[in-house]
Amino acid sequence: MYNFEFRNPVKILFGEGKIGFIVKEIPVGSRILLTYGGGSIFKNGVYDQVVKALQHFTLIEFGGIEPNPRYATLMKAVKIVKSENIDFLLAVGGGSVVDGTKFIAAAANFPGDAWDICSKGAPIESAMPFGVVLTLSATGTEMNPFSVVSNAATNEKLPFGSPWVYPKFSVLDPNVLKSLPKTQLANGVIDAFVHVLEQYLTFPNQAEIQDRFAEAVLLSLLQYGPDYVFKEFDYDVASNTMWAATMALNGQLALGVPTDWATHTIGHELTALYGLDHAQSLAVVLPGMMEVMRTEKHEKLLRYAKNVWNLSEEHDEITIDQAIVKTEEFFQNLETKTHLSEYNIPEAGIEIIIEKLKKQGKIHLGERKALDENRLRALLQMRY
Amino acid sequence: MYNFEFRNPVKILFGEGKIGFIVKEIPVGSRILLTYGGGSIFKNGVYDQVVKALQHFTLIEFGGIEPNPRYATLMKAVKIVKSENIDFLLAVGGGSVVDGTKFIAAAANFPGDAWDICSKGAPIESAMPFGVVLTLSATGTEMNPFSVVSNAATNEKLPFGSPWVYPKFSVLDPNVLKSLPKTQLANGVIDAFVHVLEQYLTFPNQAEIQDRFAEAVLLSLLQYGPDYVFKEFDYDVASNTMWAATMALNGQLALGVPTDWATHTIGHELTALYGLDHAQSLAVVLPGMMEVMRTEKHEKLLRYAKNVWNLSEEHDEITIDQAIVKTEEFFQNLETKTHLSEYNIPEAGIEIIIEKLKKQGKIHLGERKALDENRLRALLQMRY
Repeated sequence: MYNFEFRNPVKILFGEGKIGFIVKEIPVGSRILLTYGGGSIFKNGVYDQVVKALQHFTLIEFGGIEPNPRYATLMKAVKIVKSENIDFLLAVGGGSVVDGTKFIAAAANFPGDAWDICSKGAPIESAMPFGVVLTLSATGTEMNPFSVVSNAATNEKLPFGSPWVYPKFSVLDPNVLKSLPKTQLANGVIDAFVHVLEQYLTFPNQAEIQDRFAEAVLLSLLQYGPDYVFKEFDYDVASNTMWAATMALNGQLALGVPTDWATHTIGHELTALYGLDHAQSLAVVLPGMMEVMRTEKHEKLLRYAKNVWNLSEEHDEITIDQAIVKTEEFFQNLETKTHLSEYNIPEAGIEIIIEKLKKQGKIHLGERKALDENRLRALLQMRY
Repeated sequence: MYNFEFRNPVKILFGEGKIGFIVKEIPVGSRILLTYGGGSIFKNGVYDQVVKALQHFTLIEFGGIEPNPRYATLMKAVKIVKSENIDFLLAVGGGSVVDGTKFIAAAANFPGDAWDICSKGAPIESAMPFGVVLTLSATGTEMNPFSVVSNAATNEKLPFGSPWVYPKFSVLDPNVLKSLPKTQLANGVIDAFVHVLEQYLTFPNQAEIQDRFAEAVLLSLLQYGPDYVFKEFDYDVASNTMWAATMALNGQLALGVPTDWATHTIGHELTALYGLDHAQSLAVVLPGMMEVMRTEKHEKLLRYAKNVWNLSEEHDEITIDQAIVKTEEFFQNLETKTHLSEYNIPEAGIEIIIEKLKKQGKIHLGERKALDENRLRALLQMRY
């Protein structure tokens, strides 16, 4: 196990009725900017619960944060933060609203050009405090210090991270998941599933607890995911899936182990260039990643096959083949397409994606930096 | 899954060489009280590492915190805190030193009679900041807000808890475990194992992640425990056992699920009255607990038998019988006695224990409060 340092200070308020409790978590007298997305919070009752809880605060609203939140949009919010003397942000939404709010929190206190935070990894020395009322389970952003922001001007989708952008609190009430469309629920399951695999499917590092915890989250997503997406709302199913998605990326699974993130890096380009949902991009890339890295990931692929899919053929390679097939089928059974061609991406797009990654210096990917240009090309061709 | 709130702000510094990093975690200019136990830290090199790291701080030492730390001892430290204007505590030791330091931290800021914190559950409104350099893995106190203190004057061993007594940081360097005697290592494994069971072996509550995480910790302790105790020091074995013990009681396994703690409550009396090590007391009580509560715990006992011991007989009750036997054998194989008589406790002690628990109103124990006087008597007789 590698050395590690770990501190996750996010306060989680989990369960039915917890939205009302945010009043205890925000400093009295705060001027709050409530950030949200396309307006679903007005239909599902979440907005009403939030406004009721915060009736004694000054509340200013900033809506319209888009999926894959955009730099230009978020900078408008930063302007309002300054002009309205906002001192607390409340993100009410899914991963994009939370990620966007993290950027607003950092950018509001950033002295230079805030895009440098993403494009140059400029260090963040402070950020505004903010809380989260989650309305869609997927990214785990509600309990981690990471964010991904897109820039339409430069066609970039880039991550940043800082302990300054841990939420002060996050409310997870499974009931908010009631009215979501199937596609968004499926996206959430796939996103969480791949988050775990990026921290697990590397090479053994004598970190048994982390590996078993990873398998625990994967097995829970397999167990609950299909009912979560296709059956009528069930509180137990929703609460288990919601907590699984949070645990998938709150930092704990990555302690002391190597991590990959190549699937995410490639997936981000599919989103930036061709507009795939984040989870769709992962569902396309991941099976190819397993295939082209099967030598480097051999031991963990076998462990995954055995402990998650209960597979154990006479020949290891056949066992691994089956695990890859099962993984892709899991995504397909959630009605998610797993090939580039199914998303109407032109075949010439493969070289465009490669060039874009090369330009960013992202051409030696994965836990051993062994995913090079040739393997990347093979992966994308195989996933066409 | 029940509603829950969760925030664990402890910073973990894990791995070889991490003791030197405490210098970054303590406010510059602090006057530090270094608390320790019987002096093993002078032999294993930990004291030297701590003093070297803190050479630019004012360091005052308070040794002699005993196993099952005593109120009278701890109040002497509180006096020194005041007379020496201490503003930071550093616990260098195992569970007892850390628990004792938590009490010192709370008592130093407590306006009335500090024993009320334990005996009356008097609320704590603040505590001194403190850090931990762990020298023995067992109780999980390094990452939780709980403590147990003994009072020789009243023959009491009582727990308290408060978010104020989360350590600011805890250093876990597996190398500190090198020179420990077998008994202490075995105690640590058993303590952690039973901590998990107190949060797992109750009734199903649709909390799949928590249940699987619990099984992950149990399986890791089974996998590494025997080598940890009996074989030559191995860093991977030590680091996995150490992290397992921390994860066993950092709050996470208990989220949204019922918890038991009857084994601990009864075990504390065995320690207070007859001086058993904490883990010894748990090894005696737990198999009896499983037996007398087997109806109430039926489903979870079966799950435990299957997922942890890989047992699956035709008849459920036989499967459960075997799981109880396996559990006791696991303790015995760690060279820990599992019967009251083996610790030379007189048979008349059974009624003394019962009377003591009755006097404290602790006579309806467990997740359903179903462990009453009759069952308690049956349990103790069975474990004689």
